[in-house]
Formats: sequence, structure tokens, C-alpha cells
Amino acid sequence: MKYSERITTIQSSPIRKLAPLANIAKDNGIKIYHLNIGQPDIKTPKGFFDEVKKFDSEVLKYIDSPGLPELISSLQQYYTIYKMHFESDEILITNGGSEALLFSLMATCDPKENILVPEPFYSNYNIFSRSLNVHIIPITTKAEDGFHLPNKEKIQSLINPKTKAILLSNPGNPTGTVYTKKELYMISEIAKENDLWIISDEVYREFVYDGLEYTSFGSIKEVEDRVIIIDSVSKKYSACGARIGSIASKNKTLIAEILKLCQGRLCVSTLNQIGSVELYNTPLSYFMDVNNEYKNRRDVLYNELIKIKGVICKKPTGAFYIIAKLPVENAEDFVIWMLTDFNKDGETVMACPAKDFYATPGLGRNEIRLSYVLNEDDLHKAAIILKEGLEKYLELKK
Amino acid sequence: MKYSERITTIQSSPIRKLAPLANIAKDNGIKIYHLNIGQPDIKTPKGFFDEVKKFDSEVLKYIDSPGLPELISSLQQYYTIYKMHFESDEILITNGGSEALLFSLMATCDPKENILVPEPFYSNYNIFSRSLNVHIIPITTKAEDGFHLPNKEKIQSLINPKTKAILLSNPGNPTGTVYTKKELYMISEIAKENDLWIISDEVYREFVYDGLEYTSFGSIKEVEDRVIIIDSVSKKYSACGARIGSIASKNKTLIAEILKLCQGRLCVSTLNQIGSVELYNTPLSYFMDVNNEYKNRRDVLYNELIKIKGVICKKPTGAFYIIAKLPVENAEDFVIWMLTDFNKDGETVMACPAKDFYATPGLGRNEIRLSYVLNEDDLHKAAIILKEGLEKYLELKK
Repeated sequence: MKYSERITTIQSSPIRKLAPLANIAKDNGIKIYHLNIGQPDIKTPKGFFDEVKKFDSEVLKYIDSPGLPELISSLQQYYTIYKMHFESDEILITNGGSEALLFSLMATCDPKENILVPEPFYSNYNIFSRSLNVHIIPITTKAEDGFHLPNKEKIQSLINPKTKAILLSNPGNPTGTVYTKKELYMISEIAKENDLWIISDEVYREFVYDGLEYTSFGSIKEVEDRVIIIDSVSKKYSACGARIGSIASKNKTLIAEILKLCQGRLCVSTLNQIGSVELYNTPLSYFMDVNNEYKNRRDVLYNELIKIKGVICKKPTGAFYIIAKLPVENAEDFVIWMLTDFNKDGETVMACPAKDFYATPGLGRNEIRLSYVLNEDDLHKAAIILKEGLEKYLELKK
Repeated sequence: MKYSERITTIQSSPIRKLAPLANIAKDNGIKIYHLNIGQPDIKTPKGFFDEVKKFDSEVLKYIDSPGLPELISSLQQYYTIYKMHFESDEILITNGGSEALLFSLMATCDPKENILVPEPFYSNYNIFSRSLNVHIIPITTKAEDGFHLPNKEKIQSLINPKTKAILLSNPGNPTGTVYTKKELYMISEIAKENDLWIISDEVYREFVYDGLEYTSFGSIKEVEDRVIIIDSVSKKYSACGARIGSIASKNKTLIAEILKLCQGRLCVSTLNQIGSVELYNTPLSYFMDVNNEYKNRRDVLYNELIKIKGVICKKPTGAFYIIAKLPVENAEDFVIWMLTDFNKDGETVMACPAKDFYATPGLGRNEIRLSYVLNEDDLHKAAIILKEGLEKYLELKK
């Protein structure tokens, strides 16, 4: 049978493809510390479950395609905290941030067109774009620069007539980098001068540490007609299994166009939307506690990592990821080895090889991404196991 | 700003685009009988809600990308009723039948390729295919033939080197047609001889009346490597708001390819999968009652429709739709007029214009699709209102 080129050229998700090996290790009684996936252990705000459990209709009906009006309204309210003012017809509820990204690409790019994306980037951007026959042109950023953007000239030199959008996550997954206001204005200028869309993936918006100022593209008036804001309850409220995301844009025509796609898939699940109304009503104090927790975790993991000989990493300032450069040739081989050939007292660590976060061949081969979504004790243990594993691995490879 | 061609060429969903007019009528105190949308009023099996309410984890986590193992297992069990035997790695859970269809098209067609679809067809097929730059070549079927398929030669004459799949719904939406075993074998032969995929949308599988035999493409051994079965809990269990669908195929390579897309969007919502395990465990006796109910409803609506002077329709044998040809020039104009200019004692009917279910320009302009998803009393009232509305409309147009 013949498969489409778009699907055969997609690589398996690096975050998920090693899952079978982890399952085998678990079946063999090994405990795994999962630093490979952004599944937080923080409690989902109870209001979500309370609202779901209150549902008492006897028929689980469709909801309007744009989303549950109460949820759109609580999102509007939420955005005012960030001084962003969206009308109800400027927001669409989606099946997670994933569908929001897919629909944004569908609305802005035709096959063989391209988007600029700072690399390393969230590897599923590859899946969304490949499935639509859209190419990614990477803007390479480096660990040495804390994964901040190169200058305007460098970025502009990458643009060609088929470039339609700049897609970036801020704070960055997998880098943990929070872009400065200056960087945002530079990107805005480039977008305006080259008539590009800005697709701003802000699902980690709340996870910014060290008193850093966070700027959203949604607050830059000059580009409001070309900015598409992607959001999700997954990380923010530790509600990954709800699959509730959203698209917001001051460009009403864009929203009307994407609404057609929303109508095509009818609606987003009713119960999760009902529960998510309560999520977006969560008081800001929630984030102070959560942020403090993540900041401490980052410090625990980072402080252990830099103790490991040969490991290079910069302290990230946002999201809950760290990219670490290891003194190995092939980080994926090391990650697999940790699952199949190593354990310390029946425990091991699963990391995520970073090479698939890069579009440029060869980059990231010796890097891993670690998520600090476990409690401090576990993270500490995991870092020790990683250290011992790495030492043993290096010895074997000598 | 520049939008993609793929999105600007998508038409708004005919099922949903008139919703604002209905809302205005409702705001004016008019009661609307919704015969325009396939939202059943049948109770969702209680087990769904019971399971959801039993959920007691404090964190709403991601689930495996292919789907909740218990749900896949209950689907496997369910399919054995139809003598279809799928292994656990031959099923993927999706965000409704919609995502199952989108992913199936992504996996089988590249831009500028095409699929054959009997028309009239579920209009959202247009949205899925257009969003992927895939064309639909219609196989025209007619009310006079009960929307059954033309002969093999006619269908084969439509195939060209860029044809990759035949997509059809059985029982048919919007036709209510149940294909015969002979038709299925003819399509299977065509698919084999021309190396095409068969994407079989069987979400109305249980809704077959008058003792008719139902055959699934999943039971035809000769084409098992090229058949993709789409299913959904929406209609079957009156659980439209759950957004749980699935893809099943004996072609493991295909499933492995589509799994990459599933990994891209991480997972389907946790709670709805947990509830849906119970849905697929629903005893078959449930469908006997439900089917009996739908059969009676069909009879009520059909018997009233054929009494209306100038209306032409055949008695459908499956799903819960009827296509009726009206003695008007423009059925959409009539549908809108019913919402904006007509009511009988404060009540009116919303139908769905059928022209957008056709790909061939000009076809279906004088047809409407009616869903019999209301109870018999309401359906009866709705049919009377439709009759009086039509008579008044025809008088005005004289």
C-alpha cells in the first residue's frame, strides 16, 4: 500500500518513542524517574473535578464549535491580568495547544511554504508542519547564548518568498529561555517588514523565575493583526489530560477562518470545557506557590547537573526544562542505555534525547532535555542516578 | 494579512453556519425544533458518567498516545460482535470520528491528490480534505436510486493516477442509505484493482432498520490491508460531547504511521476515555431499544413528509437522516426564511440545506436534510410546522 509522503517523512516523537523501552524496564521491576516528559506532578486545581462531577444532564451533547461560552469568557478575564483584551469572537477553544498549533498552521501556510522557528524547538512542531507539507526553517540558537535569538540581519537572511510565519514558544520548550522585550520587538519588526504571522506558543507563560519580566506578543499593539496566541491548561494548571487549549487573536478575520476548521471537527469535549472554566478562574496566588516549587526544583536539578564532570548547561529562567550538553557522542544511545542496561538499586532515569529538537542535522546529538516536574527529593535522587549512570557509561565507552 | 489558500477555499459548515440565525430566533422567544443537526436526545448510558465521577486521582495526567489500554481493549471486544478481530496495536483512539478522518487522509493523501466520495456526503469531509489540499471527486448518487452506488464502470471512469482512496459512510450521512453486500464487494474490487485505500466511516453502524443486513468493510478479508474503519461513540451511545472516536485497521504499518500523528497531539482526553470504556461495554439490548425508537421516529417523519405536496423522498434504511427534495428553487433560502420570517404559534423548524452535501455544482439546491433525533411527538409537530411553513413560503414566492 502507498502512504503519503507527508506521513512517511514524519519522525516518531522523540518524547514518546522510547516509551516501549521504559515499559520493559518497568516490567522488570525497575523504578524510572521520568525526566523525559512534561507531565507535572502538581495537583490539578480541585475546582476542575468539582465542576465535572456536578454535571447532571442525562445527554452528553455537542457544544458550540468555537467553545463553551463560559470558558471563553473566563479566558477573556484571565487575559486581562496580562493586559490583553480579547473579545469573545477573538478566542477559540481547541483540543489542547496541539490543535491550536495545527489550525494556526493550516490557516497561514499552504504546502511547500515555510515558517521560521528558533531551534531547538518543541519537536511536535515538526509533526504538525510535516503533516501539512509545510517546511520549518530553523533559526539556530545556542546553549552558550542561553538560547537567545541571533540578530535581526541573521534572522532576515533566512526569509524567502515562501515564508509565512514565525513560530516560537516563550518561555521556550525545550530551552527554558524567556525572550526579552527587545527580542519580541525585533521579531515584531521582522514580521511587519516581511508580512509574516507570529504564532506565539505561550503555554508556559506563568513559569518565569528570578523576578524576570514576561512580555507576551499579545501586548504589542503594532502587530496585533498578525499575532496568534496559543494557550493550554495542560502545564499551567497541571491538567494535561484535559486537552483544552485555545487560540486568541485580535485579527477577527483569522479567527473566522479558523472557526471553519473548528466547525469541521464539531466541538471540543464538553466535560473538560466545563471543568476548565474553573481552571481559568484559579486565583493568581496559585501560581506563586507553584512557581516557587518549580524554581526550587530547577535549582536542585541545575545545581546537581553542573557538578557532573563534562556536563555543560545554562540555568534556564522559564518553563520547566533544562537542556544539558553531555560528554558523549550520541545522547540517544546513552538515554537508551540508561533504560536497558543500567540501574542504581533498582532505579533509573529517563531523559529525552535533544537532537530531534533541532532541524539542522548534527546539532543536539550530544544533548538531552530534562524536565523538572518531580518533587525536590526525587529530582535529587534522579540527578545522582544520572551522574552515576553517565560515569559508568563513559567508562564502558572508553 | 495573507491567509492560506487551503483555508480560504473552505466553505463554512452548512450544519453550523445558520446557528446565529437560530440564536436570534430563540432570543425573540421562538421555539425551534432542530432537525438540522445530528444531536440525539437519547440518554447517554449512565455508566459513562459513573466512571467519570469515580475518577479520584489528584492530577489529570496525559494518557498514552494510542489511547487508554482499557478502552482499546473494550473496542476490540465490541468489534468481535461484528466478527472483526483487531489486535491492540491495530486500534487508535482519536478526538472524535473527525480526527480519525483527518488522520486517515493525512496518512494516505498528499496535496493535489484526490479521493472518491459518493455524493451527497457528510459535508465536513470537504473541510478535512480542503485543509489538507486534497480534492474530492464525487461519485454522484440520486434520490431516485435511494442513493445507491452507480455501476463499476461508472466509478472506475472517475479514477485517475492521483486517486488514493475511496471514502464513504455506511450507513450514509446524509442519505440514510445502507450499502448492500454487493456494493461493498464492488468497491473492494475497485480498490484492489486500482490500489486504493478504503476509508469506511461506520459511525452509524448500529442504526440499520427493517431487518436489513449490515456489512462492514472490516469483514472483507480480501481488502483487509487497505481498509481503515472509522468509529465514534457520538451517535452510537448518544455521547457527542465526549469526542471519542477511533481508527481500526488490520494494516499495522498504517496504524504505526498514524500513531506518529497521535504522538504529535500527545493524547485524547483522559476522563472521556475512562467513561467510554463503559460505553463500549454497553449490552447489545441497548441498541434494540434505541433502534426501535429511531425506526419509529423515521416512520413518523417520513409518513408526514410524503403527505406534503411536491415533496419527494425515499424511505431511508439507516442512520437518522432523510433527504427531502422540496418544490422550491433554493432550499437554503427556505431554511433561512423558516428561521427569520415564520413561526406557528411561536414555534419553527430548523432544517439543513443539502446543497453543500454535494460537490457537483447545482446538485441538491432544492433539497434539505432532516435528522430524526427528536421524540415522536416533537417530530410530528415539527413535520406539521414544516408543512405549513412550506405552503406559506410557496404562496409568497408565487
